[in-house]
Amino acid sequence: MTLKIIVSGPRGRMGKEAINMILNEENMELVACIDRINNGKMLADIDGMPDVHVPIFVDSKQCFESIKADIFLELSIPDVAFTHTVNALKNGLRAVVGTSGLTKEQIHDLKILAFEKELGCIIAPNFAIGAVLMMQFAQKAARYFPDIEIIEKHHDKKLDAPSGTAIKTLDMILETREDKEQGHPNEKETLQGARGANQSGVHIHSVRLPGLIAHQEVIFGGLGQTLTITHDSYNRQSFMTGVKFALNKVNELTELVYGMENILD
Amino acid sequence: MTLKIIVSGPRGRMGKEAINMILNEENMELVACIDRINNGKMLADIDGMPDVHVPIFVDSKQCFESIKADIFLELSIPDVAFTHTVNALKNGLRAVVGTSGLTKEQIHDLKILAFEKELGCIIAPNFAIGAVLMMQFAQKAARYFPDIEIIEKHHDKKLDAPSGTAIKTLDMILETREDKEQGHPNEKETLQGARGANQSGVHIHSVRLPGLIAHQEVIFGGLGQTLTITHDSYNRQSFMTGVKFALNKVNELTELVYGMENILD
Amino acid sequence: MTLKIIVSGPRGRMGKEAINMILNEENMELVACIDRINNGKMLADIDGMPDVHVPIFVDSKQCFESIKADIFLELSIPDVAFTHTVNALKNGLRAVVGTSGLTKEQIHDLKILAFEKELGCIIAPNFAIGAVLMMQFAQKAARYFPDIEIIEKHHDKKLDAPSGTAIKTLDMILETREDKEQGHPNEKETLQGARGANQSGVHIHSVRLPGLIAHQEVIFGGLGQTLTITHDSYNRQSFMTGVKFALNKVNELTELVYGMENILD
Amino acid sequence: MTLKIIVSGPRGRMGKEAINMILNEENMELVACIDRINNGKMLADIDGMPDVHVPIFVDSKQCFESIKADIFLELSIPDVAFTHTVNALKNGLRAVVGTSGLTKEQIHDLKILAFEKELGCIIAPNFAIGAVLMMQFAQKAARYFPDIEIIEKHHDKKLDAPSGTAIKTLDMILETREDKEQGHPNEKETLQGARGANQSGVHIHSVRLPGLIAHQEVIFGGLGQTLTITHDSYNRQSFMTGVKFALNKVNELTELVYGMENILD
Repeated sequence: MTLKIIVSGPRGRMGKEAINMILNEENMELVACIDRINNGKMLADIDGMPDVHVPIFVDSKQCFESIKADIFLELSIPDVAFTHTVNALKNGLRAVVGTSGLTKEQIHDLKILAFEKELGCIIAPNFAIGAVLMMQFAQKAARYFPDIEIIEKHHDKKLDAPSGTAIKTLDMILETREDKEQGHPNEKETLQGARGANQSGVHIHSVRLPGLIAHQEVIFGGLGQTLTITHDSYNRQSFMTGVKFALNKVNELTELVYGMENILD
Repeated sequence: MTLKIIVSGPRGRMGKEAINMILNEENMELVACIDRINNGKMLADIDGMPDVHVPIFVDSKQCFESIKADIFLELSIPDVAFTHTVNALKNGLRAVVGTSGLTKEQIHDLKILAFEKELGCIIAPNFAIGAVLMMQFAQKAARYFPDIEIIEKHHDKKLDAPSGTAIKTLDMILETREDKEQGHPNEKETLQGARGANQSGVHIHSVRLPGLIAHQEVIFGGLGQTLTITHDSYNRQSFMTGVKFALNKVNELTELVYGMENILD
Repeated sequence: MTLKIIVSGPRGRMGKEAINMILNEENMELVACIDRINNGKMLADIDGMPDVHVPIFVDSKQCFESIKADIFLELSIPDVAFTHTVNALKNGLRAVVGTSGLTKEQIHDLKILAFEKELGCIIAPNFAIGAVLMMQFAQKAARYFPDIEIIEKHHDKKLDAPSGTAIKTLDMILETREDKEQGHPNEKETLQGARGANQSGVHIHSVRLPGLIAHQEVIFGGLGQTLTITHDSYNRQSFMTGVKFALNKVNELTELVYGMENILD
Repeated sequence: MTLKIIVSGPRGRMGKEAINMILNEENMELVACIDRINNGKMLADIDGMPDVHVPIFVDSKQCFESIKADIFLELSIPDVAFTHTVNALKNGLRAVVGTSGLTKEQIHDLKILAFEKELGCIIAPNFAIGAVLMMQFAQKAARYFPDIEIIEKHHDKKLDAPSGTAIKTLDMILETREDKEQGHPNEKETLQGARGANQSGVHIHSVRLPGLIAHQEVIFGGLGQTLTITHDSYNRQSFMTGVKFALNKVNELTELVYGMENILD
């Protein structure tokens, strides 16, 4: 079966990558785009867009009524994402929404609508499936190996340390890890900060160097062994594995699911 | 609650490590040992054993009848392991069996006996909990990232390549991974063997160097990212994390479970 | 002292990166460009170029005669690189030449000219200073640790295995390494290719996965230890560290040097 | 040529490893031992020693006069190391001294004696050749990549952070690295210590986990690339590569050299 897909936000960074990905997948077909300009034009007419004859609509309702499609992929801005998605579900399309910034009320309303229509809908503020797996694996390993250190490495333009992903990983680990202080009880820093940040006993180290992009290792130590889970993210294409998975997965769903972590089997 | 434990095979390599571990755990107590010699002596009397006053029995039936205990830990040889474990269960002890080489019939008989007695029994030919987690994580990641290469690294005294763990990891991966050939369709080895062993599309590389012990990386590649699961095993103490976990876990069970992978939540 | 620099090939990929780098360095100043079109225009007039008022010349002789500068940076094509560099040296400029494809005769002629003029000139077909250091370190370590394996990892669009860098690293290693066969004499591949390519005893493994860019590890094994030298290259900016170093270094030279490896102290 | 070697300190940990190594090397022969007990016995008579018929002497002078040998390997304690080495040189043997704790005056006296006798003598408080190479490579790379972070990882019984090796690496790096502050000028720790210890701009991170032994990575970041030098030390056998190298090297020397770093070409 070929999935007929309508993309909202075709000129954005995520939108461009998604269109490229869809055009390269055998079981996917791009059938229309929704944009806030260029109504009535073809995608091929727009500068910097791939040479495909797919119509562009400004009005999402009109789009869904005139184009036969299976899935609506929303990658534009929060202001319009909610309305577009409501229109998609009302017209019988399933939806994958990557836009972050939907309010709790909006998510709640979409949940009810998807339930009533018995249509799958995936809302994923973060499609980085590799990072989600890293966190899930870390959470499980923490049950058996409570001695844990996180090393996250980023380019030297990054302001905050530790990274948001490291903090989120830590939070997930602490849900399953037994409470314990790590290291030798009498350990001593001869240079202050050497042992990193200590949060509930887990130590976190932030490396910042030119050349680096976005990397994280979670190291588990046990008697005579270590287990290490590493995620290296090189560019925003990394989100496309998640988008692709969600597009295939939404077809099996008959309700709304929030967060990539909840659609991984 | 303190777990009172009887250890079979106290002079073996695994037995020695296990006794050390038990003596260092707050919630565990060593109450007797079963050995094929030294009947009636105390552990402290035996050369190279820790200085603890724990009786040694040659006859397991006599041991279980005269010493009050919770768990029987079997680390000796297959010849006697089955009889010892039957005696333990009949006397109301739970059992953790690390001996490999039990026959299918023996395992079946123990399963029935444990079920009748409503007693937990864990049979684990391999206690390397870190390696088991690595394989489980690899199996899950393979659903989302079908492009996979395995690099296993061992000391240069190892005869076979790839390692048994690499083969087992591959088998588990192939259960969840969609079929695909990896790499460029026209890729070419200018030096034969450079691309490693190709098994169902997954490539495996075996590194052999002095200094190395036992290491494995499973690398998953996706658009713009890689996810890597690494297990480093430095010595046979690495099994003790698994033994300790099994001793604590068996208490919650009322039947026989085979394989560490089936007691990890 | 500020280095006044003339760049040839400003619209090429390397040229663009180099201009960006020069504009961001405190001790460097871009004073002119040489291009095969756009004579008499300013760089700021050209689409996609940074907004700086630097004149463009088609004729290199005219450029060197009318603009006062210290260093000529040649990043265009072999056809014109030789003539441009001759003109630069004749006009008293030092030169850094990144163009590959100069003939032996041309290099020889430039060597004599630089010698006569007592002017530094660096010809570097490859500016990847990190890769050069990796190879130099590997060559030195091979004297003390003759047990070596190379793992190179690239994206799955790459056709040849092993990579050119791996081959070059191997060649450099074999110059200093004592001859020996590695691994166990009776080692056996149960899956063909597992032990990688074997070249003079050194084993090379080529990993190809989507997501990867260009990575290489050289692992040295010795009793109880391993030493690993790793180079990760993420994009062509990686050449700029080398270009920057060469621009600063050429000022100290009074003759021609070929190859980055020969200007690293 | 076979090197005839006399070992002092055969029952110590280093001595035992060294004797094993010598017995396994084709171009080396153990001809005598010097010990503070067991005078006149054979090595094979001593419990725990290999089964070789090599005489033991308490008096080093007597040993050197009665046994023909090429090299004296001193691995015992400082108290006697000086006298033994003086006697060795006076009797025309070259010497490799691994004992730490010799005074400056003693080293000076040995230097003069070796010079007069034109005999090679190597004094190496640390034979870890892999660690020495790591530090030398780091020192060289620091000239070209001033953005550096050190991650050292040890078992969780270690008291001090950072490790002595990390501090020594840092000192060596600072001799060649241009002064600069690393990271973003406005970077901010949301968890204190996340960025590690900051020494002259270089950041050092100390990981402590059960299972780990002794590991260090030095990471150099540049535009679009990173270069990483890693040393993993698994046990004290790691010193034997250095002892072996020194025994072979001392034959080429005609004077005293202090420190492994000064005998690596």
